[in-house]
Amino acid sequence: MIAANVRQEIHNLLGPRGYLDQGPDLSLYEYDGSIDKAKPDIVVFPKSTEQVAAIVKLAARNQLAIVGRGAGTGLSGGVIPRAGGIMISFARMNRILEIDLPNERMLVEPGVVNLDVTLAVQRDGYYFAPDPSSQRACTIGGNVAENAGGPHTLVYGVTTNHVLGLEVVLPDGTVIEIGGPETDLPGYDLTGLLTGSEGTMVLVTKAWLRLMRTAETVKTMLAIYETTDAAADTVAEITAKQITPAALEMLDGPMLRMVEEATHAGYPMDAQAVLLIELEGLIESVESQLEPIRATCLACGAREVRLAKSAEERDLLWKGRKNAFGAIGRVSPFYYVQDGVVPRTQIAPTLRRIGEISREHGVQISNIFHAGDGNMHPIILFDARKPGDVQKAVAAGEAILDYCIQVGGSITGEHGVGMEKMELMTKLFSDDTLNMIASFKSLFDPQCRLNPGKLLPTGKGCMEIHHAHATPAATY
Amino acid sequence: MIAANVRQEIHNLLGPRGYLDQGPDLSLYEYDGSIDKAKPDIVVFPKSTEQVAAIVKLAARNQLAIVGRGAGTGLSGGVIPRAGGIMISFARMNRILEIDLPNERMLVEPGVVNLDVTLAVQRDGYYFAPDPSSQRACTIGGNVAENAGGPHTLVYGVTTNHVLGLEVVLPDGTVIEIGGPETDLPGYDLTGLLTGSEGTMVLVTKAWLRLMRTAETVKTMLAIYETTDAAADTVAEITAKQITPAALEMLDGPMLRMVEEATHAGYPMDAQAVLLIELEGLIESVESQLEPIRATCLACGAREVRLAKSAEERDLLWKGRKNAFGAIGRVSPFYYVQDGVVPRTQIAPTLRRIGEISREHGVQISNIFHAGDGNMHPIILFDARKPGDVQKAVAAGEAILDYCIQVGGSITGEHGVGMEKMELMTKLFSDDTLNMIASFKSLFDPQCRLNPGKLLPTGKGCMEIHHAHATPAATY
Repeated sequence: MIAANVRQEIHNLLGPRGYLDQGPDLSLYEYDGSIDKAKPDIVVFPKSTEQVAAIVKLAARNQLAIVGRGAGTGLSGGVIPRAGGIMISFARMNRILEIDLPNERMLVEPGVVNLDVTLAVQRDGYYFAPDPSSQRACTIGGNVAENAGGPHTLVYGVTTNHVLGLEVVLPDGTVIEIGGPETDLPGYDLTGLLTGSEGTMVLVTKAWLRLMRTAETVKTMLAIYETTDAAADTVAEITAKQITPAALEMLDGPMLRMVEEATHAGYPMDAQAVLLIELEGLIESVESQLEPIRATCLACGAREVRLAKSAEERDLLWKGRKNAFGAIGRVSPFYYVQDGVVPRTQIAPTLRRIGEISREHGVQISNIFHAGDGNMHPIILFDARKPGDVQKAVAAGEAILDYCIQVGGSITGEHGVGMEKMELMTKLFSDDTLNMIASFKSLFDPQCRLNPGKLLPTGKGCMEIHHAHATPAATY
Repeated sequence: MIAANVRQEIHNLLGPRGYLDQGPDLSLYEYDGSIDKAKPDIVVFPKSTEQVAAIVKLAARNQLAIVGRGAGTGLSGGVIPRAGGIMISFARMNRILEIDLPNERMLVEPGVVNLDVTLAVQRDGYYFAPDPSSQRACTIGGNVAENAGGPHTLVYGVTTNHVLGLEVVLPDGTVIEIGGPETDLPGYDLTGLLTGSEGTMVLVTKAWLRLMRTAETVKTMLAIYETTDAAADTVAEITAKQITPAALEMLDGPMLRMVEEATHAGYPMDAQAVLLIELEGLIESVESQLEPIRATCLACGAREVRLAKSAEERDLLWKGRKNAFGAIGRVSPFYYVQDGVVPRTQIAPTLRRIGEISREHGVQISNIFHAGDGNMHPIILFDARKPGDVQKAVAAGEAILDYCIQVGGSITGEHGVGMEKMELMTKLFSDDTLNMIASFKSLFDPQCRLNPGKLLPTGKGCMEIHHAHATPAATY
C-alpha cells in the first residue's frame, strides 16, 4: 500500500483519474507475458515528460521503487514490480509527435503501439522495421527497453538499429536528451547503451525512430518437411548459398498443428516441420531468388514448396505465425516461452536435444522460432494447477538454455533477461564483467530504485529488494 | 621524460627492443592525421594482453597518462598524447587469432590492418565491410576506437555494426571480455558503448569482427556535372527513388582536378563535380538498377554517365577516390580535413555555404565526401609557414561545422571528436547530457589518465592535464 501523503501528492499531480491504487485494479498490473507476478503499490498514468519527471522526483524523495510499463507483453518478467512501489504506465503518452519523411524519421512517445508507427506512414511507402509478434499490442517504450526483435530482424536488425535518439528521465528526475534525429552524433553511444537496458537505467519519454522504405515486392513461401532435421539443414544451406531472406521462420509439427487448428492458415497437419520464407526487395532481385530457394528446400528434403499467390495468401501464412501464442493458449492453460540462441549450424542438434529434454522432464515442448537467426523459441506446455508441473517446466527451460550456452549460444535473443534469466547471467559472464555491468547500473541508479531485481544475478551489486511488504515473486 | 624507475620496469617487462624513449624516436609519435601535436614520454610495444595489462598497472601505480595508438591515421587528434606519459603502440599485436567462416566471424588483435582482415578471407568469398580511405594503413583498434566509416558505410553501416565483442583492459589493468562471437549476448550493450569511445574508456586488446559475404557482382559508375548543385540534386533524387547504392561519393571541381593530376584515374579536368556511384549485390538486382540511376543522373543535369567496363577501370576510379589525400599533398603543403554531417536534403546549400566561407576566410576549400550519408569532408588548404594561415583554416573549419549544426547536422560523421572538436560539443549537447557523458568517462577512468583531454569540452569533469612538462598542444 502506498503511504497516504505520497498518494495525495500523486493525486495533486495527476488528478483523480491519473492513478490506480485499489487491489482489484492493481491485479491487472501484476503480470506480463512471463510466469512471474508481483503487485505495484500504485499505478500512475502521466501524460507528459514533466509529469513523469515529477513522479520520479516524488519517488526519489520517498525512496520508492519505480517500474515503467508499456503494454505488458514482455516475456522475461521485465515489468514485474518485484519491490512494489510506483508503476509508471505510458498508456497515455501515446502520441506521434513528428513525422519527417524526407529524412526518414519519426518522433514518438513511448506508449505508441509498434504497429501504429508503420500504419502512420504506410501510404507514403515507409514502415518501421522491428516487428515483434506482439506488434499489434506492444509499445515503442517496451521495444526500446527490451531491444525487441521480430521475424524480420534477420535482415533489418533489432530495435537498437532503428532508434536514433531518446529523451529519458533519470532516476533522480533529471530529463536529458541523447542521440537525436541525426544518425551521426558524436560522443559515447548512450542511445545504444540505453536501448536494451531493460528499464533499469532510465525511463524513456520520447524516441526518434528510423523509418525504412517499403520494399518494391514481397514473396512468401512455405516449405513443408517430414523431419525437423531436413528443415534445419535447409536453413544452413540457404545461409551457405549467401541468400539472406527478409524472414526465415520455423514451426515444428506439434506447433504447426496447434496453429492450423486455431487459424486455418493452410499449414499441413501431418508434417513434422515447415519453414516460412519471405523475400523482399526489388522485383528482379526477389524473382531471381525464388527458384534457388525452392531448389534448396527440395534438395534438403522438403516434400513441397508453396508460394503465396496473393497478398491474402501471404497474410494468412503470417497470421498463423503471428497468432501462434494465441493458438497455444487454446490447447494448454499455461505455457513458458524460452528464447535461446544458437549458431545457425547448431539448429538441428539443438532441436534433437530439446526433444530429449521434453522426454526427460515429462513436459510437452513445441517449437516456433526465428530460424535464420538461430533464435529458438521452445514453448513448454504445463498446467500450473498440477503439483510439480511448474517446476518441471522451469527445469526443462533451464536445461535448454544450458545446451544453448554449451554449443556457443546465448540465453536470450530478443526477450531480455528480466527476472526470469538473471541468475543465468553467471553462466555467460565472468565476475569482472558482471561487476562492470553492475557499476553501470549504479551510475544511473545508485539507490537501486529503478526496476530493481532484474538483469543482474543476486549478489551482484544492486539486488536487494527494499520493500519488505512487496509480494514475493510468485511462480504460479 | 620518463622517470628512471618506470623506464627500468618497462625495460624489465618488454625487453630492450620493447620501447622507445629518445627524442628523435618520440618525434615520430607526436602527431596523427590532424593538425595537433604533442610528444609522449615513452612509447611501448607490447606483444600480448598480459603485457598491456602490466604496463597499464605500472602507469596506474605511477599516476601516468596512457594513450593507445594504432597506425596514427586518425583525423581528429584522438591519439595525440596531450598529457605525455606512456603511449601504447599496438603495432606488434597484429595477429589474426581465429577465422570462423561458417559463423562469419574473425578474432583479431587490435594492430591488424583493416585491409588485411578482408585479404585473409577474400578467396573464400568474405570481407570486412568498414572501409576507411586509410584502410591500407589504419588498424582495427583505431577503427573500433573511432567507430570508423568509409564509402560503403552508406549501405553496411559503420564499425560498430561489425564488431561482435571485445577484450579490453580497463585503466586499472583489469582485463574483461564484453560481447562475444554471438550477436545476441544479454545485458547492457557495452560493446556498442566502447566502440567509438575514442580511447578514453578502455584499451582494446582483441576484437571479434563480423565478416560479410562478397557480393555476386559490383558495378561502378562515374557521373559528370557542370555544377555541384546538379550533383547534389542527383544524390537527393537517387535517395527519393528508394535506391541505396553501396557507395555514393562526390568530388567537386578543385578536388577532382587535384586527384586526376595525381592518379590519372580518368576524371574529367573541366567538370565542376563528379559522383562515384557503386552498386553491388545479385547480378539481376544490380543490372536492374543501372538504367534508373543513369536516367536520374541525366535528368538532374549530368553531362555524361560512364560505367566502368572492367575490374581495372573500376579499381582506377576508386584509386582516384582513395588516394585523394595524397593528391592534395602534392598541391598544398598543409591541409585540414573537416567531417561535418548534414541531412541529405541539405547537401546543395551546404556546398554553397562552404563556397562562401572559402571566400570570406580567404582559404581554398575543396570537397570530397560520402554524399549518400550527407557526410561532408571539406578540405581546407593552407600554408602553416604563412603567418595567420592556420588561424584562417581553423576559423573556416569552425564556420562550416556551425552551419552543419544549424541545418540539423552534426560535427563529426566518422573521424571522431578527439581534441579537435571537443569544444564544439557544447553546441550539440545540453549541460546535463555533457555531465552524463562525463560521468561515463569517470566510471571507467576516475583518475582521468586514459587519453586525457579528449572528447569532452574543457571544464566538463575530466579535462585537467596533469603533466606539467607535457608539450602543449601545438596547432602548427
